[in-house]
Parts: sequence; structure tokens; C-alpha cells
Amino acid sequence: MGYRIDCLQYANWSEKIFRQMREGGVDAVHVTIAYHENFRETVLNIEKWNRWFEQFPDLIFHGEWASDVVRARDTGRTAIFFGFQNPSPIEDDIGLVEVLHKLGARFMQLSYNNQSLLATGCYEAEDPGITRMGRQVIKEMNRVGMVVDMSHSADRSTIEAADISERPIAITHANLHSWQPALRNKRDDVVRAVVDNGGMMGFSLYPHHLQGKSDCTIDSFCQMIATAADRFGVQHFGIGSDLCQDQPDSVVEWMRVGRWTKEIDYGEGSATAPGFPPQPDWFRDNRDFDNIEHGLRRAGFNDTEVAGLMGDNWLRFFEQNFTPADTRPDT
Amino acid sequence: MGYRIDCLQYANWSEKIFRQMREGGVDAVHVTIAYHENFRETVLNIEKWNRWFEQFPDLIFHGEWASDVVRARDTGRTAIFFGFQNPSPIEDDIGLVEVLHKLGARFMQLSYNNQSLLATGCYEAEDPGITRMGRQVIKEMNRVGMVVDMSHSADRSTIEAADISERPIAITHANLHSWQPALRNKRDDVVRAVVDNGGMMGFSLYPHHLQGKSDCTIDSFCQMIATAADRFGVQHFGIGSDLCQDQPDSVVEWMRVGRWTKEIDYGEGSATAPGFPPQPDWFRDNRDFDNIEHGLRRAGFNDTEVAGLMGDNWLRFFEQNFTPADTRPDT
Repeated sequence: MGYRIDCLQYANWSEKIFRQMREGGVDAVHVTIAYHENFRETVLNIEKWNRWFEQFPDLIFHGEWASDVVRARDTGRTAIFFGFQNPSPIEDDIGLVEVLHKLGARFMQLSYNNQSLLATGCYEAEDPGITRMGRQVIKEMNRVGMVVDMSHSADRSTIEAADISERPIAITHANLHSWQPALRNKRDDVVRAVVDNGGMMGFSLYPHHLQGKSDCTIDSFCQMIATAADRFGVQHFGIGSDLCQDQPDSVVEWMRVGRWTKEIDYGEGSATAPGFPPQPDWFRDNRDFDNIEHGLRRAGFNDTEVAGLMGDNWLRFFEQNFTPADTRPDT
Repeated sequence: MGYRIDCLQYANWSEKIFRQMREGGVDAVHVTIAYHENFRETVLNIEKWNRWFEQFPDLIFHGEWASDVVRARDTGRTAIFFGFQNPSPIEDDIGLVEVLHKLGARFMQLSYNNQSLLATGCYEAEDPGITRMGRQVIKEMNRVGMVVDMSHSADRSTIEAADISERPIAITHANLHSWQPALRNKRDDVVRAVVDNGGMMGFSLYPHHLQGKSDCTIDSFCQMIATAADRFGVQHFGIGSDLCQDQPDSVVEWMRVGRWTKEIDYGEGSATAPGFPPQPDWFRDNRDFDNIEHGLRRAGFNDTEVAGLMGDNWLRFFEQNFTPADTRPDT
């Protein structure tokens, strides 16, 4: 069986959820450890994870390299990879890219909904593209092995990032805009720019990104994946569920509002539906990955393609993009 | 030939000094990266070192494990190991011990001259021993593989640390108090507590720690080492030169005064001699380790003992003390 990787979750972590990862046969999860946190706050979040690693060594461990996915499978555990949904952890200090890579960060979004120091977010009215600092940080991320993630970025910034970056970039969690025209889903020219540069996209199970939202069917979801595979090549896709299990609604408010405004911003929600929407009944938590696998088979994918979509494509991407670009041959 | 390790330097780092390390055949140096710095300031110092590693990859690289000393020899470079002379980098947050170990910190003094949150420094009038937080931090340092260094601590605190710690501790840079009764040199009962628990001491070439200060002879220094070896066993000793090459006198003032006082504190200096004292002419910089090796031979040490003192004893100590205590057998 292929490896099973979920390339984006932000749950209210607990032993229960770690056990569900094991029940679901999930070998690796890319977890968000910062939305709006500055460097010191991000380190506090790393400390929280270190305590969980110490507390539940039979369920989870800190994943740093692609080989840790294999080690997870071999030891019956789940490898946890760190990522940021915003560049706030590096503040205005490019030296923090290498420091945070050393601490395990493997994905960093260049912007989260708003304009950042590096790029534009998908909720801004104007997108002037990658900034001066953005170009420098992409170069540094390429050097150390931290993946540029443009999930919440605006179109022009995303296309420019894909072109500027000398290593493939990722959209860890989004769907096709042509299937569900959400602001966060990606138009074909954006997906094209990412995959043409060797990049990857993970399909999201967050209801606002689904056709019919919480009522979306598994077959509709898998048909969208089939469309994407036909259009761009199946090897460029995987899962990035965006699972926010057990989070109180105050957390989705923190994601949207951070400290940048004193007013409420409903993001993909609305005044009448401000909280987390309910998950579709075929993907409630980490135990439901079998449903996706079965759905993909029904949509016509063969064994190799299913294995690729469920994790092997991400594994190949991890292998190529987490290590420093210029590793000395003697090291 | 044995490995050559200097277990404490704090120079005004430059390409010139890195080249001198190579000329002197120094395989590894434990460098101080914090005196009074808080966590964020320490990370800025790590960033500085990252730039040097990037700039001079043929001369130096970041040492993390004992095997890096071997790799340094094999690739004709010097492995740089990080350490702190004060626990200020962990602030009041025990979680930072693991974070900073991950970033490369391998030695941390529990106090520097003054009382700290963890232990008492050698300049305090009273030494109440290891604090409540100190006991917790020693346990955490033992767990992750960060060595307790008591070079600038007071006697009772040092003896207690040696006893409380479940892994050997170190005095990275000091000499015998019976040879030169400086406040920073160590009385026999302190050395005894350290070595009885498997610990190590590195001999200092800082003039205030030498008999006759800057006029000390190499033969007097090596005779002191012979005395220590007779008294405590040669396997417990190495070199920790305390070389502060090319530093302006403002730096020794920073070491002594930090931000804790508005008045001048002369430490081991005086109002008439406030700056760095001149090095003895037989140990001016990293090119002079041959002089020490020759002096040790004249003092009667055999080949194995000389190799041990010049670095192999530290290498053995590194092998035993830099990795986590409870490494899972499957990792």
C-alpha cells in the first residue's frame, strides 16, 4: 500500500486525534503551527508540540525529512511536519528562515488573505505581486529547503512565486475554482503556473471549498480530482484536508482577524454563519481516509494513481524539497 | 594523531581566525554565543554564525554531534559547537532548553558570576545552591543532551549540580585554585565532585587564571595539568582556552556588566587594568596548540595521555553527552 499523507490540518490537538490518525493509517500530517504568531509565539507553539511528542511517543513524532514518513510507517506512528499559514514567524528577519527550518518548518505561506511583507493575500482588492523582500525570502527558502505555499495568496502573487522560485512550490489546501468558485479555490491559470514548475496542490475538505459545501458528495469531490488530473496530470495532486477538528469557533475568528483589525471579518463565512461549517459526513476526521480512497477508485483511478493521490505524490515532493539545495557532497 | 578540541573560545570571529583554526589543526571549537543575551538575541547570534557557515564552508561548519568532529578532520575543516555562559537564553521558559538544543546549543552555564534563576555565580557573597527551577532545568538538559557547565558558578552550586545531574557535567574553562588562587579557578573538592560524577574540566589560557598571569610559562601550566592528572585522573581533562582573540576591551566590560548594573564591575581585572590582559607569548591564538602539545610531552605525559588532553577526552565526552538520554531504539 502507498503512503498516506495529509498535507494540511489544524485541529485542536489531543490524544484522541493522534489515535484517530493511527486508526486512519495516516503516516504523515503537515500541521499548521502559526497563523499570525510572531517568532517567539511560534516557538511557544513548537514547545507545545515538543510536549506532545514527549507525551505520546508511541503515536506521533516530529517529522523533518521525507524518510520520516517511511519511518512512521515502519514504527506504526504518524510523522508531524510543521508549517506556517503566514510569514509572520519570520517577522522582518530573513535569517529566521534558516532558524525555523532547523526547528522543523517545512512549508510557509507567503501571505494569509491579506497583504504581507512578501506577497498579497486572496482577499485584497489589488495584487501587486511578490515584493522586494518576498523575492529575497523565496531565494532563501529555496536554499534551506522550506516550501513556498500559496494556498491563501492572490493569483498574480501565486503565479509570480511559481515562476521566481527555483524549486517547485505548493498550494497545500485548495480546490479547483471551476468546480466551486470560492475565493480560496484556484483558477486554472494559477494551477497551471504551479504544476508547470513541478509544483503540487492538495485538495481541501473544508466545506467552504466544496461544491455544495457541507452537503458535497464524495463522488462530486472525486470527480473534481479526476478533472484536475486530466487537465494537469495526476502526479501533481494530493490531499490537504484543512481539517480543523474540535476547534471552537473562536479559533476561526482568530484565523480571520488575528490582531490586524478591531472589526469582525467573516472570511468565507457570514454574519449568519460565522463559525466552522460542519464537515461532510464522509470526511469527519482522520479515520475517514478510506472513504476518499474508495471514492477515487470509483472515479476511475488505478492503483498507482490512487496511491499517488493518497500520499505518494506528496512523499516524492517531500523528498525533493525539504533538504538544503546545496548540500555539500561530503556531508 | 588524536583529535584537537578547544572547549571554549569567544573571539571576535573573522576569516583570519577561522584560517588560524585550520593552521593550528583544530578539529572542533566550543564557541560562546551568549553571555547575557535573551532568547531572541541569542537567535540573532545564531543567525550571525549561519552567515559565517554560508560564507566560509571550506573552513568551518556547524557541529552538532561528536561525529562532526570526525567529519571535520576528514574534510579539513573546524566544527563549531555552540554554548552559553549564562542561562539567559532560556529566560524563564524550560521549553527553550529543547528548542535551543535543536538549534545546536550543547553547553549552558547555570550561572555567570551572579545569581541566576538556576544557580549562584562565583562572585556572589552567598551561595544557596541549585534553585527549584535549576533542578528542573538540569533534568531537562539531561533529557535532551545539553551539558551543564559550571565554569563561572560558585562552589556549593557546582558541587550540587554535579550530584543532581544524572549525566556528567563540565567545567569547560578554569584551572586549579591550588595553582593560581583566582576566584574563577576551582578548589579540589569542586573538581572532585565533577570528576567523581564522570565530568570533565578544560584548562584555561586566560591570563587571570594563570600563575603569574600573562608571564606564566608553558612549563608551569603543563606542570599544573600533571598535578591535576595525578590527583583526579588524566581522562577527566582537556583544553578550554577561553581565547578572546581580537576583542575590543568594550567586550570584556559587556561580559562583566551586561545589563545588570549601571556601575562598572572590573571582575578579575581592576581599575588600573580594566581590559583584556595580553596572552602569554606561547598561546596567542589557534596556531599555538603545538606549543601546548610539546609542553605536555615535556611534563611527562605519554602519547595517549597527550592525545586525550588535546581533544580525545572531550571527544569521548561529546559522544556520551550531546544526544538525548532516551533515544528510542527504533530511531
